[in-house]
Amino acid sequence: MTNNKGPIGIFDSGIGGLTVLKEVLKMLPSEDTLYLGDTARLPYGTKSEETVIKYSIENTRFLLKYNIKLLIVACNTASAVSLPVLRKQFSIPIVGVIEAGARAAVRATKNGKVGIIGTDTTISSSAYTKAIKSVSPDMDTVGQPCPLFVPLVEEGWIDDDITLSVAERYLGPLKNKDIDTLVLGCTHYPLLKGVIQKVMGSGVTLIDSAEETAVEVTEVLMRMNLNPPYTPFSKGGEVNVPVRRFFVTDVPRRFEEQWSRFLGEKLSKIEKIDLIL
Amino acid sequence: MTNNKGPIGIFDSGIGGLTVLKEVLKMLPSEDTLYLGDTARLPYGTKSEETVIKYSIENTRFLLKYNIKLLIVACNTASAVSLPVLRKQFSIPIVGVIEAGARAAVRATKNGKVGIIGTDTTISSSAYTKAIKSVSPDMDTVGQPCPLFVPLVEEGWIDDDITLSVAERYLGPLKNKDIDTLVLGCTHYPLLKGVIQKVMGSGVTLIDSAEETAVEVTEVLMRMNLNPPYTPFSKGGEVNVPVRRFFVTDVPRRFEEQWSRFLGEKLSKIEKIDLIL
Repeated sequence: MTNNKGPIGIFDSGIGGLTVLKEVLKMLPSEDTLYLGDTARLPYGTKSEETVIKYSIENTRFLLKYNIKLLIVACNTASAVSLPVLRKQFSIPIVGVIEAGARAAVRATKNGKVGIIGTDTTISSSAYTKAIKSVSPDMDTVGQPCPLFVPLVEEGWIDDDITLSVAERYLGPLKNKDIDTLVLGCTHYPLLKGVIQKVMGSGVTLIDSAEETAVEVTEVLMRMNLNPPYTPFSKGGEVNVPVRRFFVTDVPRRFEEQWSRFLGEKLSKIEKIDLIL
Repeated sequence: MTNNKGPIGIFDSGIGGLTVLKEVLKMLPSEDTLYLGDTARLPYGTKSEETVIKYSIENTRFLLKYNIKLLIVACNTASAVSLPVLRKQFSIPIVGVIEAGARAAVRATKNGKVGIIGTDTTISSSAYTKAIKSVSPDMDTVGQPCPLFVPLVEEGWIDDDITLSVAERYLGPLKNKDIDTLVLGCTHYPLLKGVIQKVMGSGVTLIDSAEETAVEVTEVLMRMNLNPPYTPFSKGGEVNVPVRRFFVTDVPRRFEEQWSRFLGEKLSKIEKIDLIL
């Protein structure tokens, strides 16, 4: 049963997934979108696979109440561990960020040596390595968890000496591995592109899954005929403004500041919801 | 209705509260204890007051199922924002870490100038300032959030150059305030005592609430006649071993390593539970 009128649903552990939404909105400006940030239980990247899968199912159930036609799992950790379960349990098309990032990395590398950085749980799941090898089995991959990158971004220490020192410590081991491509396997990391590029050197291509994910979403919608007919004007002549709703499970202090860091625009109207009542 | 046979319940957002439990076990070795670490939803220190109160109520309800005679809220953030609500809603005696830390700080200071470091939510609640002024209204206090200290401890970067740089940045503003006492207002911070003392200088006394909290628990139990009669031997002549149970809501990777960092002993038998079913 196709439903080409429903919105696109997208969830993340917090607001890092806004970077993915931003790319989706650029590519598909007429789509309705619902964003859910599970800010009351973040981060996911330090939690067990079992817990992340449980949270992902709850997030998906919430978005399905709004009759979404496609789900984007914008969180790398959730994509890494919960996608098979979600695809088994729910019948709508589901796009994660890992496969998109893996394809982009395979396309970008010249020497077949790809590094991956991400949260503890993402790296220990080996999800990127599996996805890269399923595209191109001969690739060499090496993973490195960078647990302090997320708190550093949330603290706003972006172009910063301390962040540079942390990056040097985490990325040092990768520099000896002759990689020419590095996957930024967490939605927070693109904000540290400057620092990461400085440490890795200009010879290493950084892969940000957000843009590639938006490309994949566009393809899936077209393939499944789920694109809404493009109707910028209603019958009455007014411009149809696509629906954009933002749900979060917690609104902490400093939220506004962090929000604009990720979406590149000021805090929109958000709706605070309880996933579990 | 007194219940002097029940265990002491203690909860924290994670396993940082084990430092409090450790002091309680030293002072009250014959008490039965139940520890609950809400590892599936940590950290609390970056979440809103509303969410932290909700979690604190759920944690308390869980422990009350085991007929606890006294509750210790070992998390500074939870103590800072949820104690009044918990005391209104539940009838057992409840001990937080803030009041104990405040009393110790007032006792320690000579010039009446006290600094407080903690999470974002703890510092913005002003709970320590209020508690210190309720003991001694003329005190001067100054608070400073240190959001990166918790992830640094969890990463294990304890005696570390990067941690020293972070401490210098956070504590710099406090050094100009002529404080002679600094409250370590988060259960993770005592692990950074070395670095913090180095930055603040030997003239500043560091206050760790854990020991003071254990003193308060002992006093409350005695005052309310809730101490179990000390019976190290059962009638049969065997030594009565006090019950110690550990509940957590998630068991992430690297858990064992972090556990022993806080309790000073190897991972005991833990029970993974779901607070919300």
